Amino acid sequence: MNHSQLFNSIVQKRSFLCVGLDSEIEKIPPFLKKLKDPVFEFNKRIIDATHPYTVAYKPNIAFYESSGSRGWLSLEATVKYIKKKYPDIFIIADAKRGDIGNTSKMYARTFLENMPFDAVTVAPYMGEDSVTPFLTYNDKWVVILALTSNKGADDFQYHNEDGIKLFERVLSVSQKWGTINNTMFVVGATRAEMLKDIRKIVPDHFLLVPGVGAQGGSLEEVAKYGMTSKCGLLVNSSRGIIFADNSENFYKVAGEKAWEIQIEMEKYLKERNLI
Amino acid sequence: MNHSQLFNSIVQKRSFLCVGLDSEIEKIPPFLKKLKDPVFEFNKRIIDATHPYTVAYKPNIAFYESSGSRGWLSLEATVKYIKKKYPDIFIIADAKRGDIGNTSKMYARTFLENMPFDAVTVAPYMGEDSVTPFLTYNDKWVVILALTSNKGADDFQYHNEDGIKLFERVLSVSQKWGTINNTMFVVGATRAEMLKDIRKIVPDHFLLVPGVGAQGGSLEEVAKYGMTSKCGLLVNSSRGIIFADNSENFYKVAGEKAWEIQIEMEKYLKERNLI
Repeated sequence: MNHSQLFNSIVQKRSFLCVGLDSEIEKIPPFLKKLKDPVFEFNKRIIDATHPYTVAYKPNIAFYESSGSRGWLSLEATVKYIKKKYPDIFIIADAKRGDIGNTSKMYARTFLENMPFDAVTVAPYMGEDSVTPFLTYNDKWVVILALTSNKGADDFQYHNEDGIKLFERVLSVSQKWGTINNTMFVVGATRAEMLKDIRKIVPDHFLLVPGVGAQGGSLEEVAKYGMTSKCGLLVNSSRGIIFADNSENFYKVAGEKAWEIQIEMEKYLKERNLI
Repeated sequence: MNHSQLFNSIVQKRSFLCVGLDSEIEKIPPFLKKLKDPVFEFNKRIIDATHPYTVAYKPNIAFYESSGSRGWLSLEATVKYIKKKYPDIFIIADAKRGDIGNTSKMYARTFLENMPFDAVTVAPYMGEDSVTPFLTYNDKWVVILALTSNKGADDFQYHNEDGIKLFERVLSVSQKWGTINNTMFVVGATRAEMLKDIRKIVPDHFLLVPGVGAQGGSLEEVAKYGMTSKCGLLVNSSRGIIFADNSENFYKVAGEKAWEIQIEMEKYLKERNLI
């Protein structure tokens, strides 16, 4: 999928929602735990209920890895399920990997070759050769951390050389490694006021925006400061959708929560005359 | 294991060698591929041959993850094997993880609770709440990337605010999150000339030093500029040991390579009167 195809998908769905599959085994409804692969069964129901309102899914690998080889099987089954049943949906491995070249190559193979993910999130600390191995696959993307949504973002991401903050340097330097068709950046919704300046550095790139919902970011502000003429946004919500309810109807409630967000997103897309 | 116990282990072994288990399935001797779990069988032979010369092992998770759930089983079997047969050896998960607090907590659980690793490598880009979940386990360590051995280290790690480079800020800020008993830093051997200045910021912390061997770093320089009165160094070699030979005798050659390094290390420890 390239930049235009992703925009087309947003226009069709009237949504730029990404649903985060942070499917922590302790938090899924108890009745599912009797089944053979509870995490996959949970994801399947969430996906079937939310896909009409969603252009992307983002499993956070930590929540699978923590169950070892079993969790890995749940992850593989989930990605395969999405790709087969909803082939137009974009799937992001939220892995935040990054290592020296020969090692990043292995991480890229894991997510972009062995599993049918469309994109992987990567931490930029180790620089170019830790990121470029993810850019060697056609129609696949790397999503580079720029300004994250958590409190710890203040510790290093604002480190300021001659007026240029570290996250700004990450944006300006790393956009040269790829194109708008294979590179996105993470900018937390809790930093929405920064989006105006960020758009001066990356006017056209897609941004993956976490932090709406449980972390307190505002969708309205993100759309106001971050939207481009091709939308340029994937806004993620995880816990606010998938764990909105813990009963046997959890998936219906998740579908309703996703729908609510889609309606709000449709409004912003209309205001910009993008749909 | 705490700082003193790690030093005691170095004194006993007369070595501060860490063997990196970057056990890429394509590179292991062909005759092993007939066995049920070739990667584990490879690791087992490497471990049995190198353990007399080694204080630590460091599986790089990328090389296991790239085989999916099967690779994860090889990793679990390897760590279990080391812990059972050689309980005094320190085991580092080279995972370079790091995410918002609730997610880093899951990564910490994966490596420090579900598997018997002693330490995990972590990328510092997301700051304090991405690192501290790894510090909540007794006698377990976090290994924070500071100045890495690869070319891409130049892209962001030297970003300079008022004379303080980013990697120096990482060292000075993040050492406050833990103690010398639960925090180490990665400093690449290819940057050995920087170790003198780095020791002014972290005089007592253990440093995990990759990049000797295949990447071209000098053990002599690392020892000269980086060694403390409690050694304070774990120097890693991966490919130079584990892939030194590809025949049925690969493990013997690996053992000899590790022994050669141990002999050189013993010399430096003696010169400093540490043994």
